[in-house]
Amino acid sequence: MKIGLLGHGVVGSGVSRIIDDGKTWEVRELEIKKILVKDESEMTDERMTLNAADILDDPEIDIVAECMGGLEPAHSFLMRALKNGKHVVTSNKKMLATYCEDLFDLARENNVTVHYEASCGGGIPWMASLDRTRRVDDIDSFRGIFNGTTNYILSRMSKEGSSFLDVLKDAQKLGYAEQDPTDDIDGYDVRYKVALSAVKAFDSVISASDIITFGIRSISADDLAWCREKGLTCKLIGKGAYHGDHISACVIPMFLKNSDVFSNIPMNFNAIESSSGTLGAAVFVGQGAGSLPTAHAVVQNVIDIWKDQDSEINPKFKKPVDNSSCEGVYYIRTEKPEAFSAVCAEKVSDSVLITKKTSLVEIQKMIHDAQDESLFIAEVDSL
Amino acid sequence: MKIGLLGHGVVGSGVSRIIDDGKTWEVRELEIKKILVKDESEMTDERMTLNAADILDDPEIDIVAECMGGLEPAHSFLMRALKNGKHVVTSNKKMLATYCEDLFDLARENNVTVHYEASCGGGIPWMASLDRTRRVDDIDSFRGIFNGTTNYILSRMSKEGSSFLDVLKDAQKLGYAEQDPTDDIDGYDVRYKVALSAVKAFDSVISASDIITFGIRSISADDLAWCREKGLTCKLIGKGAYHGDHISACVIPMFLKNSDVFSNIPMNFNAIESSSGTLGAAVFVGQGAGSLPTAHAVVQNVIDIWKDQDSEINPKFKKPVDNSSCEGVYYIRTEKPEAFSAVCAEKVSDSVLITKKTSLVEIQKMIHDAQDESLFIAEVDSL
Repeated sequence: MKIGLLGHGVVGSGVSRIIDDGKTWEVRELEIKKILVKDESEMTDERMTLNAADILDDPEIDIVAECMGGLEPAHSFLMRALKNGKHVVTSNKKMLATYCEDLFDLARENNVTVHYEASCGGGIPWMASLDRTRRVDDIDSFRGIFNGTTNYILSRMSKEGSSFLDVLKDAQKLGYAEQDPTDDIDGYDVRYKVALSAVKAFDSVISASDIITFGIRSISADDLAWCREKGLTCKLIGKGAYHGDHISACVIPMFLKNSDVFSNIPMNFNAIESSSGTLGAAVFVGQGAGSLPTAHAVVQNVIDIWKDQDSEINPKFKKPVDNSSCEGVYYIRTEKPEAFSAVCAEKVSDSVLITKKTSLVEIQKMIHDAQDESLFIAEVDSL
Repeated sequence: MKIGLLGHGVVGSGVSRIIDDGKTWEVRELEIKKILVKDESEMTDERMTLNAADILDDPEIDIVAECMGGLEPAHSFLMRALKNGKHVVTSNKKMLATYCEDLFDLARENNVTVHYEASCGGGIPWMASLDRTRRVDDIDSFRGIFNGTTNYILSRMSKEGSSFLDVLKDAQKLGYAEQDPTDDIDGYDVRYKVALSAVKAFDSVISASDIITFGIRSISADDLAWCREKGLTCKLIGKGAYHGDHISACVIPMFLKNSDVFSNIPMNFNAIESSSGTLGAAVFVGQGAGSLPTAHAVVQNVIDIWKDQDSEINPKFKKPVDNSSCEGVYYIRTEKPEAFSAVCAEKVSDSVLITKKTSLVEIQKMIHDAQDESLFIAEVDSL
């Protein structure tokens, strides 16, 4: 199999290293023919090119592996690759969660497939396990710690009693958080991963923008102190569930019981759980990011294509996201507690309340109406 | 694919239920033609028979799935099935760990395969993930909580400060432990699973009896109190590592840091971790036993055979188990502390000592020479 690699950064260089090393007979069947790099300074071997057409229009290339990141030009490049009858492997969650419907349709028209194990959970064989479980059973639901940066921030805040901003700044200094941390701390990174997990788990395309999303930007040391006092641990959780004609999905900080497996996932790890009728709960824990684990997932997908080119893996159907059946008990800290009086079950302080069991959609409306930028919400697993 | 099912107990009845239900198109391609049951009272549908030959010698049956347990007649039945050119799927860890070399050789001679995902980790897709990881990388090592019964006993002893015998009796009453608990509490159940995991992870047959094995039969409330005081949690761990020309493997209680993912695995769950160069640490957590999770794994293997009948999955080569490179710090409680004076680093009490870093093989010899039935040993992860 001849592969064209788009991008040679953290993930792309890992992919070329694994394939060039050729540790197993499967990997030795693969060959990277060309690598698209950003500028002259990256041109370190003869396979490298600055011209995407050298890869996208080369009839000898069977598979295009995209590790560029960003919406464009990654999206247009992959559309062109699919039109030219090439299979696609991508680690780009944001781009795929945004355009998966178009890409899947185009792939189907051209009898090729789009693979994306590396887009979600890095090296965790999460997507592959969903595929495998679905051969025997439906997936009923999933939940996960999908983001290492927020897991790191929450773990350190909780351990040290420090403020969100102090830990964020330190995480940025140490390279655990981006200089623009919006995608991580506002939950968008998790939202993309939940969208793609839902595609795989429930075999349906969904709109990522319909996923209710709350991040941890406004969390305070006091919120975590209350959480700890109640024997709970705070994690940013993405989750999805199947309801036949629709799918529910959200991203929300959760106060989980300390005994929950998720409460004890180390700082830089991800953990994702699927539930199905016969298998029950199955949890996968691993490095959710990093050059080699993510590159490993890209190479696995290349081997999947090589071994089973005819399999139809991209869903045809689209299902709506509808969270109206999602109910929970919520912890809300707000400067406008009066906006939540209709659902308040307990006042923890002047600014903190615990709701009675309420629909998440209703809570979302109230939050929207309250217009309180500093508001923090977490779902409380159990009290 | 036509399947002959040997045994219709906890696992076997789960297999027939999943296949008869036919939830997915893959499962609907499978058909159970005959089921071997123990006696007339189990003959509840027309596919059932009391005569194994009806299955083993039926040329229409492609796959024999064995869920009987025990060494014989399971072993002879599967030898006969392989001779007759049938693929074999088994959930029987004790039988397979004992006879895998013979069974694999016979399978190879007859161009068929032996599959055993259900033999280890129940519903956890552990074996399948090892197969997948090995397409790209070597597995360097693995470790796991492979046994639910001992995990339950240790969790309850630790929580309640109760004695081993009290918790064991209660576990037997509740059905969490067998009436003859030897295989579980002396570590033999874990030994079989470590042997089969090593076969899969390192692509080599090994002798289960060469795996150094210590159980939890002699653990006391005081041992656990010391462990807790040091911020550690006790788990019965099975582990294996690859060293090129040999494999090391042992079963031993370990005092792990409380922050270790393994320290927080719920009572009735199993957890297994693999390590490889590119993927790093990947942990799988799930129900290690139970009718449907284990049956799910059997059905997955049947689908594996159906989808890819030509693949060579059973290793040809045998490698020795050699633990001489395994070193650790050990907690030893014994009535004969003098037998360990050469390796003692710290005396905790008259009967409890912590060793300096010592070879496990050396410790094993000293334990053998000490002849102290009540001795308890645990490896200390870190102090």
